[in-house]
Amino acid sequence: MSNLEDTLRAIAPLDDRAARSAVARLDSLTKPPGSLGQLEEIVRRYAAIRGDGAARFGGGALAVFVADHGIADEGVSAFPQAVTLEMLRNIAGGGAAISVLARRFRYRLVVVDSGVKTDTSAAPLAGVTYRRIGAGTANFAHREAMSGAQARLALEAGIEIAREIAASGATLIGIGEMGIANSTSAAAILCATTGLAPAELAGRGTGLDDAGVRRKIAVLERALERHRGSLTGGESILAAVGGFEIAAMAGVCIAGAALRIPVVVDGFIATAAAAAAERIYPGLFDYLFFAHRSAEGGHARALERMRVRPILDLGMRLGEGTGAALAMNLLEAALEMFHSMATFQSAGVSGKVR
Amino acid sequence: MSNLEDTLRAIAPLDDRAARSAVARLDSLTKPPGSLGQLEEIVRRYAAIRGDGAARFGGGALAVFVADHGIADEGVSAFPQAVTLEMLRNIAGGGAAISVLARRFRYRLVVVDSGVKTDTSAAPLAGVTYRRIGAGTANFAHREAMSGAQARLALEAGIEIAREIAASGATLIGIGEMGIANSTSAAAILCATTGLAPAELAGRGTGLDDAGVRRKIAVLERALERHRGSLTGGESILAAVGGFEIAAMAGVCIAGAALRIPVVVDGFIATAAAAAAERIYPGLFDYLFFAHRSAEGGHARALERMRVRPILDLGMRLGEGTGAALAMNLLEAALEMFHSMATFQSAGVSGKVR
Repeated sequence: MSNLEDTLRAIAPLDDRAARSAVARLDSLTKPPGSLGQLEEIVRRYAAIRGDGAARFGGGALAVFVADHGIADEGVSAFPQAVTLEMLRNIAGGGAAISVLARRFRYRLVVVDSGVKTDTSAAPLAGVTYRRIGAGTANFAHREAMSGAQARLALEAGIEIAREIAASGATLIGIGEMGIANSTSAAAILCATTGLAPAELAGRGTGLDDAGVRRKIAVLERALERHRGSLTGGESILAAVGGFEIAAMAGVCIAGAALRIPVVVDGFIATAAAAAAERIYPGLFDYLFFAHRSAEGGHARALERMRVRPILDLGMRLGEGTGAALAMNLLEAALEMFHSMATFQSAGVSGKVR
Repeated sequence: MSNLEDTLRAIAPLDDRAARSAVARLDSLTKPPGSLGQLEEIVRRYAAIRGDGAARFGGGALAVFVADHGIADEGVSAFPQAVTLEMLRNIAGGGAAISVLARRFRYRLVVVDSGVKTDTSAAPLAGVTYRRIGAGTANFAHREAMSGAQARLALEAGIEIAREIAASGATLIGIGEMGIANSTSAAAILCATTGLAPAELAGRGTGLDDAGVRRKIAVLERALERHRGSLTGGESILAAVGGFEIAAMAGVCIAGAALRIPVVVDGFIATAAAAAAERIYPGLFDYLFFAHRSAEGGHARALERMRVRPILDLGMRLGEGTGAALAMNLLEAALEMFHSMATFQSAGVSGKVR
């Protein structure tokens, strides 16, 4: 069942009892209480989302969604649109940064063609899952990026991918993306959801120069004006200025909450997906981890507005889920300390005196 | 040869050619230039310190130094002094946080008794290397923590440990520590090296309450006044207010530079060791990585004064080398991307257009 409404209805509250049970164990471990800092909060939230006070780990998966964007026609990217397909091939072929990290950390890598301009599904690329919504979005400088029906299809494709991953036993999903010009789409979504202005959010993407960034801001300002009436609900925002891969990631965020599987949100683009998903299901951020503070555009500002705290801050701006993979690996290390450390009692270590 | 003077003389400049070679490869990989952010800078520095443009990795080791502190008599710790020995046993026995991380990341764990109050060397604990300088330091509220000869011995014990680790083929060393009351010693060292005041540096350690922190600050203020004449050179600072484990970590920092092995400095206490080492060899920070911004006391302020940028910022304040282990694991992931990613040429990915 990958129906959006059913999935939304399946979301249960966080499990406070599991969270308290995890905290009790954290406090029994041979370390000053709270001394693992954010890692303890990560374990607590993992337990609460999973509904499992033992915070068991069943493996991680990285879902990387790839699609093209009509807005690329406005000259908002430093790289040609052909790179989207080239990188789809590279990611699935093992040569991209995320391919290396997935191998290193033993995360299943699910590479999804959500709508690359060139359709390769007739002679499918090895390692690619095809869930194409179209041959790239329309140019949202002039019209809606996609229809409402396409936005729904893309969301439900993401839900379906999350369900498949859950069925494999994984208990953690990282989301990432690739798509030339998608930082323009993400900036538009974050303008709509956070109220920040294009000049506060637009960044260099893959490496625009100053003139390119000014052009990108102007394109965003005009597009936001054009679509003003549509920029309220999560689905209509995605339809107006979104991308197929962004809508699919939003679907994963929603499905993760329904499936009790924490979703680790990568950088700028994935954050836009999470923000759109939160418009569809207010409170959704409680079920997500934000991997890192990206160097792209106003990511730091957007995260602040969203009142979420990322795990890493490494000045990365690569996408693909690379920040998510690194944060997942940290989360796993936190879980392993939680599972394997001795307690004050078992190790015979004395407690506090003052 | 673990002689301090010989080791200092063996330190060669950073290898700019290796650094440039690493940067050239980083820029050829299938990602926007610079998009791995701080991870690229980490690879560049690793190559420069190693003198190896290929930035090969030969394994990591964690050296954890444990010792007692006479200053504990002033009531500056929330836990009793017995915990130092109990945790030495726990770390070597596999139950401490650092034990779990070392296993998980396959880092050799070298646990060193640098001077725990109770001497267990007659019936040695399994997994402990004994390099005892004394049965805990003296109380530096009233006299020098150790003699100049002891400070030298402790430094050279650290150098020796680093040489043993290097001989095993490891190309990365993390340093960490355990010692009840050692955050008071570390704060004193950082006051001396950074010019910050006790009130700006002293923290809760393992969990002091407000009154405890006020007492700690008062103890520090009086001790700094008492030892004022000694707080200039690195060795005399270590002798006056240091700890055996802190001096040993300073020795590792110096030896790492001489051996061309990057040393990853853990949190507040290890940072004090690095600061003392830098007093002995100005410019030493270039050969070190600072693992994380600890939540302990004024660690963030001290790092700022030292003009170094930590890798992680997770609000941790556990010590033992836990932050170092996590940062080493990130560094390794960065190296693996550097080694294993496809290049634009090999993957047939197009370059920039604008």
